[in-house]
Amino acid sequence: MMTLYGYFRSSTSYRTRIAMNLKQLDYDYIAVNLAKDEQLEAVFQSINPQGLVPVVQINDLWLYQSPAILEWLEEVYPEHPLLPKDAAGRMQVRALSAMIGCDIHPLNNRRILQYLRNELSVDEDQVMAWCHRWMSEGFDALEKRLAQDKTRGKFCYGDSPTFADCYLIPQVSSAERFKVDLSAYPNIVAIDAHCRTLKAFADADPMVQPDAPNA
Amino acid sequence: MMTLYGYFRSSTSYRTRIAMNLKQLDYDYIAVNLAKDEQLEAVFQSINPQGLVPVVQINDLWLYQSPAILEWLEEVYPEHPLLPKDAAGRMQVRALSAMIGCDIHPLNNRRILQYLRNELSVDEDQVMAWCHRWMSEGFDALEKRLAQDKTRGKFCYGDSPTFADCYLIPQVSSAERFKVDLSAYPNIVAIDAHCRTLKAFADADPMVQPDAPNA
Repeated sequence: MMTLYGYFRSSTSYRTRIAMNLKQLDYDYIAVNLAKDEQLEAVFQSINPQGLVPVVQINDLWLYQSPAILEWLEEVYPEHPLLPKDAAGRMQVRALSAMIGCDIHPLNNRRILQYLRNELSVDEDQVMAWCHRWMSEGFDALEKRLAQDKTRGKFCYGDSPTFADCYLIPQVSSAERFKVDLSAYPNIVAIDAHCRTLKAFADADPMVQPDAPNA
Repeated sequence: MMTLYGYFRSSTSYRTRIAMNLKQLDYDYIAVNLAKDEQLEAVFQSINPQGLVPVVQINDLWLYQSPAILEWLEEVYPEHPLLPKDAAGRMQVRALSAMIGCDIHPLNNRRILQYLRNELSVDEDQVMAWCHRWMSEGFDALEKRLAQDKTRGKFCYGDSPTFADCYLIPQVSSAERFKVDLSAYPNIVAIDAHCRTLKAFADADPMVQPDAPNA
């Protein structure tokens, strides 16, 4: 049995939930309340000294860092593949994923925004502008890729979901929360809309997690 | 024949050069001068609309995003493997890589520091403090992992180089440039010192690239 340590609103937890659902894996969910800094408490620090979710436990094995968790899931549970079979396709899916996982998400997460507020005395309008800048710049590039790549289908790559969709949907969700105007991104919006019709994505949604307010 | 579009000082170009050298692949090098914003010019935008290096060209195939490039190299050129054979080992190497590639590097690159300076009017002391904060927090976590993981050897994982070392050495180089005190990180320092004795790492060093000043 697998246990996922996560937080309902964490994008990296969300992408991991999507991947596990797409692979039809059962898992227990243990919420780590980042808003109450539970990730800094001794219990969780012994699980992951970096104090970050998600962490996945399977018996004696502890998986951490969502990019590594997704690759592990793909290798150990090859059914319902989330990567294409050919090397060029796999490169493309991983590159789209990294455009989100390396160039958008890390800039907008909680510890960064707290630093802007607390250490650099940045006001809330500037915090919003910061988030908008990196999300827009990232989505501009992603939209161009999705518009020009012949491999784009109902999903970011072809007509079945891949890692790239696991990364994209939580990032769109985050952009909506920060009120980023998505009208310039028709490809992203269409993929997002299609993914949300699928149970694997719906069941991973932050607002239906046990630790969501009024879940 | 492969062509690498990179910049001498870019950490993501540096990690790609290390991986290509470790795999003993020949490549042409085309410098894209980020200090002169050449990545924003039409020529490079047609190559990568995200305006980021590295990009690797092999005939009609264009690889982008260093995490995806490294995985592609490993799949297409399996000799001189940069990932362990077992899934748990591969997870560990990818997780250590992501600790650097997602949680340290993206926060300290050029476009972010320029935004802090130009849009948020942050002074140079605060820019340095910003870099120190994320490098130290990331290295604290990485050092704990390397100290406790039984898989650590002469390199981040075992006694041959992996992706994790391709990520680590450029990050240490960047930390040194920002004068981060590394004395609290004996494992990181030892791995870095060992890697630097190897030709594949030495040949990838920013200061010996054709576009380095006084190269």
